[in-house]
Amino acid sequence: MSGREEADGAVRGGPFAEAELTCDALLDGRVMLRQPRRGYRAATDPVLLAAACPAQAGERVLDLGCGAGAAALCLAARVPGLELHGLEIQPPYAALARRNAAAAGVALTVHEGDMAHPPADLRAMSFDHVLTNPPWFPPGAPAPEDAGRSRAHVEVAPVTEWIAAALRRLRPGGRIAAIHRAEALGRILVALDGRAGDVRILPLAAREGRQARRVIVVARKGARGPLALLAPLVLHEGARHEADREDFSDAARAVLRDAAPLGLGPPV
Amino acid sequence: MSGREEADGAVRGGPFAEAELTCDALLDGRVMLRQPRRGYRAATDPVLLAAACPAQAGERVLDLGCGAGAAALCLAARVPGLELHGLEIQPPYAALARRNAAAAGVALTVHEGDMAHPPADLRAMSFDHVLTNPPWFPPGAPAPEDAGRSRAHVEVAPVTEWIAAALRRLRPGGRIAAIHRAEALGRILVALDGRAGDVRILPLAAREGRQARRVIVVARKGARGPLALLAPLVLHEGARHEADREDFSDAARAVLRDAAPLGLGPPV
Repeated sequence: MSGREEADGAVRGGPFAEAELTCDALLDGRVMLRQPRRGYRAATDPVLLAAACPAQAGERVLDLGCGAGAAALCLAARVPGLELHGLEIQPPYAALARRNAAAAGVALTVHEGDMAHPPADLRAMSFDHVLTNPPWFPPGAPAPEDAGRSRAHVEVAPVTEWIAAALRRLRPGGRIAAIHRAEALGRILVALDGRAGDVRILPLAAREGRQARRVIVVARKGARGPLALLAPLVLHEGARHEADREDFSDAARAVLRDAAPLGLGPPV
Repeated sequence: MSGREEADGAVRGGPFAEAELTCDALLDGRVMLRQPRRGYRAATDPVLLAAACPAQAGERVLDLGCGAGAAALCLAARVPGLELHGLEIQPPYAALARRNAAAAGVALTVHEGDMAHPPADLRAMSFDHVLTNPPWFPPGAPAPEDAGRSRAHVEVAPVTEWIAAALRRLRPGGRIAAIHRAEALGRILVALDGRAGDVRILPLAAREGRQARRVIVVARKGARGPLALLAPLVLHEGARHEADREDFSDAARAVLRDAAPLGLGPPV
């Protein structure tokens, strides 16, 4: 889903140079992710997304807009025996996802193409699960220089299109898991309306009592069960950040460090 | 919005007999509400709804489906100087709302009619605020005997129609406040989509860590500001109910007993 813009607005398609990359530890080092130093960088969102996916061994999973492969590799680290696919529009990111998967010993098939017109081999497949972490910029902000994707792409792909593309790739009864800023919740539910049910919404709040800045939404294609609005996952302890100290909550640490699943199961 | 069914399914339209009524204290006795002993009874929902309405003196407010008048009277108890209207489809409830308002010394104009085809005097008005607490039955459950409204009415008025009817009565820039079971959140946001913005969602959870059973949604007609998913209001202290003891949380008690407003203001 990502690319690099030159000053003239063109997207460079060549591979990343080694000096452009960092190598970051996710899930306490279970996943080592090479990703570009500048532009969009995987932090907690793809890790949380992977934790919300209820995939089981033997199932086929698509990471829609897989970037450098963070969500797919985090899922593989928790659930062995999956058939994992990624779709990525920007060749340098697709190459990086392949490299990250190979280094981890994970069989991740990375397809290159646009979610609106996926390559034929992907169109011929249907999935038990689709994960997606659509790109976004802060509202009103210009796309940062070298932001990891072209402005045009952001403009032409609102979250509703990501959800629709994910639903097209799911088998009936298959599950979508999406993470996005909480502001997009209305558009996500509109895109799911009439197409998926058993919707579970997990608000992600930085601290206790704060409004949610992210949401994870899981739903089942073609289902008609009721929506559930779950208790928020509070990511950090305390009322504010204290410098030089990691302050994840126990619940967040279990997911982000210890690779625990996020329970978005049936209502309690 | 309410009536009474006989065994043959007809709705009785006569006034309630005195023996059919109870008189209940809301807002620590600031509002004394006569309501039928059986069928739908106002408990915390209309009190919370009224607390979420940011109406100010001089503004015109409609309680859509006002029943016995609980939400309108709770709002009047907190905010003086409002021009208050209610719309109620069932004459015995409309009569009861007038009686409750008169006893409280509140000038509440109760219109009788269907929200889909409101009376002409109401159609000629537009409102700064519309409150609504649409009726619902537990999913799959039959309408209870003498449930306070006809089954047919429940069937023909999904929550999307309540939201649409509320939006029709609002002036541009006016605010809707709705309370409903959390399952309806998707339908509510679909009904608001493209018609209202600045959406604020307040999840209401019985206890800390539980999924929300109710939501309050406030939105502004014609606005385009972002949605905010607020931290839940937790209604009760502790992990479970202890018999014979009121266990409201401090935040809930402030609203339900002391008539504090619910802050659904701009994002923090």
